[in-house]
Amino acid sequence: MSEAYIVGAGQSPFGSFPDETYRSLFDTAFDRTLESVDGELDTADIEEAFIGTLGVGGRQIGLSGPAVTEHLGLHGIPTTRVENACASSGYSLRSAVAAVKSGMADLVLAGGYEVMTDTSSDHTKWWLGVSGETEWERLSGTTFAGVYAQMASAHMDEYGTTKEDLSRVAVKNHGNGAQNPDAHLGFECSLEDAVNAPDVADPLNLYHCCPTTDGASAVLVASEDVAFDLTDDPIRVAGVGAASGRVGLFQRPSLTSIPATKEAAEQAYEMAGVGPEGLDFAEVHDCFAIAELLAYEDLGFCEPGEAGTLLREGRTDPDGELPVNTSGGLKSKGHPIGATGTGQVVEAFKQLRGKASVQTDDPVRGLTHNVGGSGGGVTVHVFERTSEVEP
Amino acid sequence: MSEAYIVGAGQSPFGSFPDETYRSLFDTAFDRTLESVDGELDTADIEEAFIGTLGVGGRQIGLSGPAVTEHLGLHGIPTTRVENACASSGYSLRSAVAAVKSGMADLVLAGGYEVMTDTSSDHTKWWLGVSGETEWERLSGTTFAGVYAQMASAHMDEYGTTKEDLSRVAVKNHGNGAQNPDAHLGFECSLEDAVNAPDVADPLNLYHCCPTTDGASAVLVASEDVAFDLTDDPIRVAGVGAASGRVGLFQRPSLTSIPATKEAAEQAYEMAGVGPEGLDFAEVHDCFAIAELLAYEDLGFCEPGEAGTLLREGRTDPDGELPVNTSGGLKSKGHPIGATGTGQVVEAFKQLRGKASVQTDDPVRGLTHNVGGSGGGVTVHVFERTSEVEP
Repeated sequence: MSEAYIVGAGQSPFGSFPDETYRSLFDTAFDRTLESVDGELDTADIEEAFIGTLGVGGRQIGLSGPAVTEHLGLHGIPTTRVENACASSGYSLRSAVAAVKSGMADLVLAGGYEVMTDTSSDHTKWWLGVSGETEWERLSGTTFAGVYAQMASAHMDEYGTTKEDLSRVAVKNHGNGAQNPDAHLGFECSLEDAVNAPDVADPLNLYHCCPTTDGASAVLVASEDVAFDLTDDPIRVAGVGAASGRVGLFQRPSLTSIPATKEAAEQAYEMAGVGPEGLDFAEVHDCFAIAELLAYEDLGFCEPGEAGTLLREGRTDPDGELPVNTSGGLKSKGHPIGATGTGQVVEAFKQLRGKASVQTDDPVRGLTHNVGGSGGGVTVHVFERTSEVEP
Repeated sequence: MSEAYIVGAGQSPFGSFPDETYRSLFDTAFDRTLESVDGELDTADIEEAFIGTLGVGGRQIGLSGPAVTEHLGLHGIPTTRVENACASSGYSLRSAVAAVKSGMADLVLAGGYEVMTDTSSDHTKWWLGVSGETEWERLSGTTFAGVYAQMASAHMDEYGTTKEDLSRVAVKNHGNGAQNPDAHLGFECSLEDAVNAPDVADPLNLYHCCPTTDGASAVLVASEDVAFDLTDDPIRVAGVGAASGRVGLFQRPSLTSIPATKEAAEQAYEMAGVGPEGLDFAEVHDCFAIAELLAYEDLGFCEPGEAGTLLREGRTDPDGELPVNTSGGLKSKGHPIGATGTGQVVEAFKQLRGKASVQTDDPVRGLTHNVGGSGGGVTVHVFERTSEVEP
């Protein structure tokens, strides 16, 4: 089995862009990906592509993957649209890694996009609910904020987590996002602001919810031969993990944990040969504030119930022992559904190259964690600087 | 690179099933897949799944892949929804083969489904157009029958192909489908009936168009070790090919050929080490009658312009030199979008096991050809009996 490496990664600005299309956003992400490659890359050498999007927002629906790659000038290459809700591009990366490891391709594009602020189509209106379980969640009117509010309530009840704990996710991530020129909500917020924001789905308020965002992101995955032709320090995909979970929250044994995250993390740690203690940073899926707390616990950053303490003690701040969401996370950087998974990898790539907007101290290894829906599909990847670590 | 083998394949009946859901249909396909496996298979050994669907018809939209596998009892396994319009499950098979060849999994489920006859949702009404190019085809009112009618007109103009030639596709495929207990339109039709049917999009009439169908299909892809544990005669995936094409018909240099089919076929033939002359049967994508004629030419079964002759001479009849669409094809068996690609593989598996409803004479090797939209994404696979051919 060949190793897989990231040789380039880039994203469009995340935000609300009424004058952009899914293809113009992806063009920007792709251009920036190419710019991030050390050596000379001929785009004709890109052999396959996997494009993640939920994509029911009124633009190109069927065959949007090939519609993206033809616009990039990558004519004719096999292109697969991957959809696993908010984990769509975490899964497109997974397929790209498999394509490289299989020997079927040496250089593969993985990415994703979403255009969410175009509400010109009827379909956009029921958009965000469509990744919930259909019969008992979506059709009965449960929104995603409602689903995560149930998890937050349960966590508060079981562990004494407070609204201030939830709000500290926003304070930290906005603090990071304020430094990120590509962030959708690139401004700081105070704990007071975050605690007192208007309710969305109690106990979650406006500052506990990520925005609705347009954007695209992309990464280039290469085999060993191609990777070291392009750069002396490709980023190794050291760990790959993915798992499904019950799509409906009501079908799960607990509301305070996402089993698919645990399972995916276990796989990725085992393959990478490290545990959470071997990580120098992480980008986790904070679609709602409670989701970041659950991620800490399910990824093994702390024991169940201790995520609030981790935050309070600043241990996931940029200068803490394990900085989390230095990009601003979904909360501040934004959450263009299909673009989020590979968008997290863009941050990991920048961190490991020393080029992040909130740079951690000489990191060797980082993790990305991408959640579809409320945990119906999860990917976890571990990335590693090859110049520092022998595979 | 490990070889990949098909160890089981099955489909639900194709038809109009108002009392079924996407999950109940997939359950049937999966049960039949398991029944088709020679040895004892523990479903807990299935490590990953790829589920193809266009899936914008009002059922589970986001995360429908995990929603399918949880219903099958395959809890927790990584499940990716793949969407490439009518080639969705051709591409889900491609990803399953890559997963096995990569060493990331030894036993992988690939399949697809569609529920098309449920028109209770608004979204179903614009369904079939969504895989056309958006700005210049779909939003300007071009239907898929309209797109293929343009190809038919061009072929008639360029090569003198006649309405009778188109109608012979229906006569042949209905003749085959009438023997297939799982066919949606399992009845014969005469040349006179087919020629004189009401127009849909001139020159295509009702008998030149496939039906709108509910159904599901599945295959199990295994690594060498697992495959030969389960059976002495697994079906080897000897050739794999895929390519994209311009999504919009107006963007292509010719209306009488689908470049992505040619490219995908070239890859599959090269990998399999055979050309069309090495095939004993083929399942080709006959969503409209003209599509089968184009397939003959683009897959190299004959020269450009000669497809009508091939049909007239009966060379693709069940007793001809290269039987095509012995299952009944999309025309008679039916075309549940996401289920079609792996549905074709079900027929290939049955043919190579000597269990097809219209059985060809001791076949060793067959091809499947799955087209997304009007050629925006195509897969071609070649399958081979291992008992007859050394890899």
